Amino acid sequence: MITRRSFLSLAGASALASLPRRSGAAFTQSTPSIDAARLRHRLERLSYHGRTGMSFADGVNRVAYSVPDLTARAWIIDEIKGMDVVPRIDAAGNIFARFGGQPNQPAILFGSHIDSVPTGGNFDGDLGVMSAFEVIQAVQAAKIQTRHPLEMVVWAHEESTAFGIGTAASRIVAGDLQAGDMDRVWNGMKRSDAIRRIAGNPDQIETGVKAKGTWHSYVELHIEQGGTLDKAKIPIGIVEGIVAIHRYDVVIEGQVNHAGTTPMNERHDAMVAAAQLTLAVREIASRRQGRQVGTVGRIEIEPNSPNVIPGRAMLSVEFRDLSEQVLRELGDAVKARGAEIARDTGTTITFTLASTNVPAMASSGVQDAIGRAAAAVKLTTMKLPSGAGHDAQQIARLCPMGMIFVPSVGGISHSPKELTTWEDCANGANVLLRTVLELDQRDSL
Amino acid sequence: MITRRSFLSLAGASALASLPRRSGAAFTQSTPSIDAARLRHRLERLSYHGRTGMSFADGVNRVAYSVPDLTARAWIIDEIKGMDVVPRIDAAGNIFARFGGQPNQPAILFGSHIDSVPTGGNFDGDLGVMSAFEVIQAVQAAKIQTRHPLEMVVWAHEESTAFGIGTAASRIVAGDLQAGDMDRVWNGMKRSDAIRRIAGNPDQIETGVKAKGTWHSYVELHIEQGGTLDKAKIPIGIVEGIVAIHRYDVVIEGQVNHAGTTPMNERHDAMVAAAQLTLAVREIASRRQGRQVGTVGRIEIEPNSPNVIPGRAMLSVEFRDLSEQVLRELGDAVKARGAEIARDTGTTITFTLASTNVPAMASSGVQDAIGRAAAAVKLTTMKLPSGAGHDAQQIARLCPMGMIFVPSVGGISHSPKELTTWEDCANGANVLLRTVLELDQRDSL
Repeated sequence: MITRRSFLSLAGASALASLPRRSGAAFTQSTPSIDAARLRHRLERLSYHGRTGMSFADGVNRVAYSVPDLTARAWIIDEIKGMDVVPRIDAAGNIFARFGGQPNQPAILFGSHIDSVPTGGNFDGDLGVMSAFEVIQAVQAAKIQTRHPLEMVVWAHEESTAFGIGTAASRIVAGDLQAGDMDRVWNGMKRSDAIRRIAGNPDQIETGVKAKGTWHSYVELHIEQGGTLDKAKIPIGIVEGIVAIHRYDVVIEGQVNHAGTTPMNERHDAMVAAAQLTLAVREIASRRQGRQVGTVGRIEIEPNSPNVIPGRAMLSVEFRDLSEQVLRELGDAVKARGAEIARDTGTTITFTLASTNVPAMASSGVQDAIGRAAAAVKLTTMKLPSGAGHDAQQIARLCPMGMIFVPSVGGISHSPKELTTWEDCANGANVLLRTVLELDQRDSL
Repeated sequence: MITRRSFLSLAGASALASLPRRSGAAFTQSTPSIDAARLRHRLERLSYHGRTGMSFADGVNRVAYSVPDLTARAWIIDEIKGMDVVPRIDAAGNIFARFGGQPNQPAILFGSHIDSVPTGGNFDGDLGVMSAFEVIQAVQAAKIQTRHPLEMVVWAHEESTAFGIGTAASRIVAGDLQAGDMDRVWNGMKRSDAIRRIAGNPDQIETGVKAKGTWHSYVELHIEQGGTLDKAKIPIGIVEGIVAIHRYDVVIEGQVNHAGTTPMNERHDAMVAAAQLTLAVREIASRRQGRQVGTVGRIEIEPNSPNVIPGRAMLSVEFRDLSEQVLRELGDAVKARGAEIARDTGTTITFTLASTNVPAMASSGVQDAIGRAAAAVKLTTMKLPSGAGHDAQQIARLCPMGMIFVPSVGGISHSPKELTTWEDCANGANVLLRTVLELDQRDSL
């Protein structure tokens, strides 16, 4: 049973501050809270599925559709059943479990994913899923009856390792389905077979698509994967949105020639042009205010022999920012510099916009709820964009979305060295819990 | 029978100029000369072996030890037999054929190679070998009896395509033999088997080594492969020497990280450091007077994914110059810049001197002979280094060496577009012929 007093406590630090000290103390005691030891225990148990060594610190290889992914999912389904709820697996293989609420209300959705990159850590995705259990259990322990059903979700396939598609399973839920999607082959496995492996239904994949308004809201707790919070020593990040990505494939055509016989001033060296372009990308991404980033992450040159002047270079140029306008400006700037570099080096440089992602803005209502939730547990916050893609990006198409970030030590992710302290994990789970209860008070966002 | 008049004519333009006009005209008529049409015909016939299309202009793929290499060698051996000489094949598979001369005199050696890179042209190496036939035939046609035997050679394997070893066959003749050399494997073929394929004797490979002084001198006619002569419109290049090469393997260790979540100023991007180093190599090689060159021809980055900041880059840095002192200074300069780049980018950069070649200086006596030969046929000359490696580089260890260069149109080589005009081919062959006869007059160089 949720009381007026516990509601008040969720209204944040300012509301608490206006109350008499003694009452404030009493509220704190009665407020639902996650169990930090149980959260840690679950993260450690999950890590057995795909652990790459004896220790938790050895990291995990739990690529979507792999055996460790299957066994981890089976364990999660057992955990859900242990809470007297039968989970539902949709056509894409996503696991949903719904608790309480009034039947005429849309559910508040929260969760994340448990698949990893091949040399991953134990926090990316995992923290959001294991904390979802805590939210349910804390609400149940406090005997709170929420107006909206609380629904936890385990997105079946987030990392782009499998089939080269990121947020693949939430993408289906958001209605992003193309003909032939199920026929893609990766590692000798057809995507339809992969989805069948996790009890999905590829033959009726369209039944996985959800309508706009299916959910009241979606909140995802995730590690930052960057170093901003860790550096600023701030425990809670409120995500403003998930950046858009503009990725260019760049081809530089120079002239292959003998590295011994061709004087320096007669070269059309594709590698030299690629080097200039790489530095231009960095300079263009760095020189303006803001959090935009630019990366040359891939390069291949031909013939790639020490004694031959490279005649051809192919590289990727990727820009990320919350603003598509900024991305267009960055792209225009690098293309203009590319034209200068081509002229200076006697090469031709071709830019192809290979892929674009629209930005997904977090709902201001959900951002506010996170802010109040953090304030209620006296945790400082900072707003920041998510430079990485997340399932939340897809679900933002269906309902108001928000994300809670907790610090990644040293900003390291997608690595066995990925680390978020147990304290920060618990803080994040508590803020998730209180955000969900904050959202439950709102009919619309 | 060589006459005093023909000797005089070989003494060059200045000697000719001092003679009465009529006599000069008479000398020109009696002077031995190559047959330009026959030279062209032989180059075209040779091109059938490994031609990659219907036309001569499609270039050639005649990698050492391949079927086209074997059939071309068989044809050459037939051509030599047609001149009533039985060629000798040494342990390395080099083909030698000796004509005339006094038995107590060391031979004057000349020739080149017929193996090509996989997408090669019809002049690199081929011109020197086909012109060697012309020298012999012109001397025979003019009934000149030389003091020194004239010996043509077809080096069995010059391009570094096969087994990754350049000038591999002349290297053996020069005594550069290491334990295990014959056991190297390339394309599933053991080097000993490859050499056996071309009638060499890998089991007694050491019998291929020749002592210093075996030959009187060595001259090689070759296309320049660079654009210096073509640009200067000078038909004959006199090679001063073959440059030394210092090649470094460079490893840059940065920090692999998420390209979306890592702010620009917190990156340790190995690709950015590699780009800076590439431009430093170009600047360092370009800023001083001289013909030194510097190239980054190879790069590999890890993990080489558009959405990951490269954590590691491996690249080659190669400098070439006639002076080892200059090479050391270039290497020191790039290492100093590397240390600055490492500091600026938060990476570590390690340089390993992976291979060095000593420079091979052309004998001033042979250079003078080429100069007189060119002057005798009224061709302008320029002195220049060879930026490419050649068999002459190896044979320079055994006897005085010289090289004649003819222009490569546009400086293009190791390409089907490689082109030397028929006129320049004929000029080169005539200068080779006259150089050999010039050298025949000298007991020592």
